[in-house]
Amino acid sequence: MSDRRPIGLFDSGVGGLTVLQSVRRRLPRESTIYLGDNERAPYGPRTDAEVIRYSGECLDQLVERDVKAIVVACNTSASVALPWLRRRTEVPILGVVRPGAFAAAAATRSGRIGVIATQATVRSGAYPAAIVDERPDAQVTAHPTTALVPLVEAGQHQGPEVEAAVAEALAPLLAADGPAIDTLLLGCTHYPLLGEVIGRAVGPGIAVIDSASATASALAVVLEVDGIAAPPDQVPVHELGTTGDVAAFERTARRLFGDAVTDVRQVRLPRETVGAGVGRA
Amino acid sequence: MSDRRPIGLFDSGVGGLTVLQSVRRRLPRESTIYLGDNERAPYGPRTDAEVIRYSGECLDQLVERDVKAIVVACNTSASVALPWLRRRTEVPILGVVRPGAFAAAAATRSGRIGVIATQATVRSGAYPAAIVDERPDAQVTAHPTTALVPLVEAGQHQGPEVEAAVAEALAPLLAADGPAIDTLLLGCTHYPLLGEVIGRAVGPGIAVIDSASATASALAVVLEVDGIAAPPDQVPVHELGTTGDVAAFERTARRLFGDAVTDVRQVRLPRETVGAGVGRA
Repeated sequence: MSDRRPIGLFDSGVGGLTVLQSVRRRLPRESTIYLGDNERAPYGPRTDAEVIRYSGECLDQLVERDVKAIVVACNTSASVALPWLRRRTEVPILGVVRPGAFAAAAATRSGRIGVIATQATVRSGAYPAAIVDERPDAQVTAHPTTALVPLVEAGQHQGPEVEAAVAEALAPLLAADGPAIDTLLLGCTHYPLLGEVIGRAVGPGIAVIDSASATASALAVVLEVDGIAAPPDQVPVHELGTTGDVAAFERTARRLFGDAVTDVRQVRLPRETVGAGVGRA
Repeated sequence: MSDRRPIGLFDSGVGGLTVLQSVRRRLPRESTIYLGDNERAPYGPRTDAEVIRYSGECLDQLVERDVKAIVVACNTSASVALPWLRRRTEVPILGVVRPGAFAAAAATRSGRIGVIATQATVRSGAYPAAIVDERPDAQVTAHPTTALVPLVEAGQHQGPEVEAAVAEALAPLLAADGPAIDTLLLGCTHYPLLGEVIGRAVGPGIAVIDSASATASALAVVLEVDGIAAPPDQVPVHELGTTGDVAAFERTARRLFGDAVTDVRQVRLPRETVGAGVGRA
């Protein structure tokens, strides 16, 4: 039992490329189609209704391409929209929240876990709920940050401005009178792109967990269990698309995948409420 | 999308009850059918051909009962027989090795992981391979033990004999000149029944990971992704069966699930090579 069709992934922008990177490392024979909705990034400050609608449009686009499985490589979308997305298609859909929660629950010793994520993700309560599913005695402190995604989307991954923004985002979790976490979960797929700065900010005593590699591992299990992994002889094909600026998207993609990235497609999503191809919603 | 059918689990004996316990805790609305092949336990010292044949017979029995998913709740079987089992049925089959490996890879800080398991599991190399899939820089020391499963099957879960056997099993991993592990993976579903003794033997500096709870979490993801979780109103039904001594099986099941356990069924597996119902293979 095997299946040569690609895996579809989508995110609000470039953040999900960290999930794509983990999937390509973990499952090197799988073909992929990635869609970044950069035109409407970030999803984090959006209303739930907007996140659900935008995510649905990304999903439809991937389903149309006959993908065998879909990874919602956006924490905001996975936290808010997953049940709606699953009603829209029979294609297996994996979010990044449960795998990330599982990895954090396995990593902690003390049970005290900090989560940084977008406003919409924190508002959903998805991470604390998923972590407590795994470890009922866990104490989870989820803290919303707004400054980090725009920096990543703008291609700023280090330097003084990033360091200041990271320090501010982590301050409530690292304060001397704070929750004394031993594990920090990066609850947004954009954040691993700031991994170096975040690692320096928390120091060696705190395990930093990103949902990207956890999701790739969960995907490996799903493909195996459902008998839809690529056959051993498959030569994978990878396709990247964005609703936003192709050149800007390419720059971040090159940082992760090297100079081979040259063929990012411009994608126009049909918009549900404003008609097809009418531009910005 | 939901599915009221039960989940099937099988093990060489009572060890898989630790997986069942985790599944019942993690997925309280799911019905289950558990099959322990106690008559032929332990599988650990068997040849691969025997493990594959016995596992196939257990699998067929569960498939006949129209289960919606199967958990191979036996590390020996999951390590040795999984690809063969998957060729036998279209029912999704989850083993305990990948989830356990994932949890251990997430738990370790130093990357040095010890695994204790049966001879057949260690011989298969399944755990080191699965752990390195998750974390390529991991250093895994897998150590076979033969004494522990018979003790558990005999209902001995603590006391001096158990303490001595555990100390001997762990000695190569805990020696002063040993691998200095920071994480111990219990690579056999019987071992969590010795959890207290093992925890005391390793001390607080080493994280003890069992594949039971990791497998329950992976199962939760698979049911969600495949849209086959039980509906929220389901009142679960649990069925226990053994090919061995019913009274002995009931004693261990009661230790985990309380006095409600009264209806363990005697199961006779049709034997592939010796004809149906002809007793011991």
